Amino acid sequence: MGGDYAPDEIVAGALAAQREHGLTTLLTGPPARLRPVIARLGASSDLRVVPAEDSVGMGEGALAGFRRPRSSIAVACQLVRRGQASAVVSAGSTGAIVASARHRVLPLPGVPRPGLAVLLPTYPKPTVLIDAGATADPKPEMLVQFGHLGVAYAQIALGIPKPKVGLLTIGAEPGKGNALTRRAHELLTAEPQGGAQPLYFAGNIEGGDLMAGAVDVIVTDGFTGNVALKTLEGAIRFAAGELRTALTSTRAARLGAALQRRGLRELSHRLEPESYGGAALLGLGGTVVIAHGASTARAVTSACALAATLSRGEITEKIRERIGVSEQRRAHFLRRER
Amino acid sequence: MGGDYAPDEIVAGALAAQREHGLTTLLTGPPARLRPVIARLGASSDLRVVPAEDSVGMGEGALAGFRRPRSSIAVACQLVRRGQASAVVSAGSTGAIVASARHRVLPLPGVPRPGLAVLLPTYPKPTVLIDAGATADPKPEMLVQFGHLGVAYAQIALGIPKPKVGLLTIGAEPGKGNALTRRAHELLTAEPQGGAQPLYFAGNIEGGDLMAGAVDVIVTDGFTGNVALKTLEGAIRFAAGELRTALTSTRAARLGAALQRRGLRELSHRLEPESYGGAALLGLGGTVVIAHGASTARAVTSACALAATLSRGEITEKIRERIGVSEQRRAHFLRRER
Repeated sequence: MGGDYAPDEIVAGALAAQREHGLTTLLTGPPARLRPVIARLGASSDLRVVPAEDSVGMGEGALAGFRRPRSSIAVACQLVRRGQASAVVSAGSTGAIVASARHRVLPLPGVPRPGLAVLLPTYPKPTVLIDAGATADPKPEMLVQFGHLGVAYAQIALGIPKPKVGLLTIGAEPGKGNALTRRAHELLTAEPQGGAQPLYFAGNIEGGDLMAGAVDVIVTDGFTGNVALKTLEGAIRFAAGELRTALTSTRAARLGAALQRRGLRELSHRLEPESYGGAALLGLGGTVVIAHGASTARAVTSACALAATLSRGEITEKIRERIGVSEQRRAHFLRRER
Repeated sequence: MGGDYAPDEIVAGALAAQREHGLTTLLTGPPARLRPVIARLGASSDLRVVPAEDSVGMGEGALAGFRRPRSSIAVACQLVRRGQASAVVSAGSTGAIVASARHRVLPLPGVPRPGLAVLLPTYPKPTVLIDAGATADPKPEMLVQFGHLGVAYAQIALGIPKPKVGLLTIGAEPGKGNALTRRAHELLTAEPQGGAQPLYFAGNIEGGDLMAGAVDVIVTDGFTGNVALKTLEGAIRFAAGELRTALTSTRAARLGAALQRRGLRELSHRLEPESYGGAALLGLGGTVVIAHGASTARAVTSACALAATLSRGEITEKIRERIGVSEQRRAHFLRRER
């Protein structure tokens, strides 16, 4: 029930995911709303509805995520917690999904706060940016955990065996940044604690290098990550708009644009935030994928396919192994201090 | 002596500023290095050299700024402090300039930390972004002070009588953001304290809206501001590169590109970070303008012209008036707490 085009596009996307990617989708929401949509698609015998009478609006945030146990997102999270589903996909309000998932899918031991992983469309392989907005004020230790989450994600979703990790900060030298990133840099260069696996830490990354593809995973706090991601999307949209004006300002230029139609179409497709799929909320006891609020059926299908890839790749188990036991104890102390 | 093309391009830029903008430039540096450059430009009787035997390298940071009293940047700052110059312009290392200026030009009462203001090339008027990297870990009160600095800058440099102020954060609603921006939002919406003048606060701005031109001044901490600015520049560079590939990938497209040459040239000029001038370090007892490290003579001339505009507009006095007396007292307590 989440997303600007819910439930129609969500249902259509879920059906396509089931047909094209060999997975089973359960829809949570009011049966009386969903059944006619499913019937119109001729899928009454294919898609199962799990009743959820309430739903969280796109304008609602974390509070609604915590408090509304009968909302479609809460019911979906409960299905994962009970083992009746492998993953949740939602195009609803990010704040509500994060809150609902933390409350109902529960954090993994050793990962007190989840991180939201998105793919930046770098060439030849995308780059994972984590956290893109789940945890606005993490402690430095959590940035190391985000590194592990991002590495597991890059291994499973992108097939990179030993992903290189960079820290988003200001200035290339180790001592540069704010208090958070200076401490995180120390932790990332230190020997892994106890049972944690090593990270291939490649040093600092500046904002100008987000699209350089120099590392596989870029670690940041959720505030900076969200500002950077939206700045990136906004700048590319701005450049495309300026370009459109420049390319059609004179008759000669318009003729030129006609000659370039295919190249430009491919470019705008590659730069389109929608086309590089949903964001993965990592560090919880189950897989959660957040599709863009404006998702159409095609984006929902991509998000379902990503959720299936992560779940089949056993990302939750991989993260447990990466974080190790001793890291769990430290996280326990961190939690008690809060 | 700062900048990738020092001293040749710096000297040429300073000379052009003097000839084109009716201002007097003093050059700080080793006379034996500078005099031959000046002589080659035929300007031996026009440009005065103030001796400074030491200089801070582009790879050096804040420590060198604090510690090297005979460096060209330190001597330039001392000229301003003694009233022998109205402003400093440097293309050197930002960290070293900020540290040297804080130490030698001194902070303004009521403004414990300076903010670096840059112009984003929005249409029809540029937008001021402050802080772009001077103060990585400000307190919430400092973001309000940055608002005042940015407003004074927009009034003097852009001629906007009542600049609208936005707060860079995540999510449009007041409660969104991290701890810093949530508190800063409260302070920005509160009645001005004591003698401070009111700010026209227009609410939250997200990363995607940096180029929207919705407000005149965007306030942020130096860490987020620097990441956002570099992300913006990097994304525009990336989009331009992708575009070049798309526009020249086929023979038809190359023909098209030839037809659009002028429009594309204008676009790339508008998006070029260099063409929108230097960054102003505000909140000190004198004007400091930081030109890009890769500045050529033209960029140095623009930076000198900006410094002259700010100085003639009496920005330091305007900031004193805006901040007011009571704000000064609060800042005094803040300083003592640190």
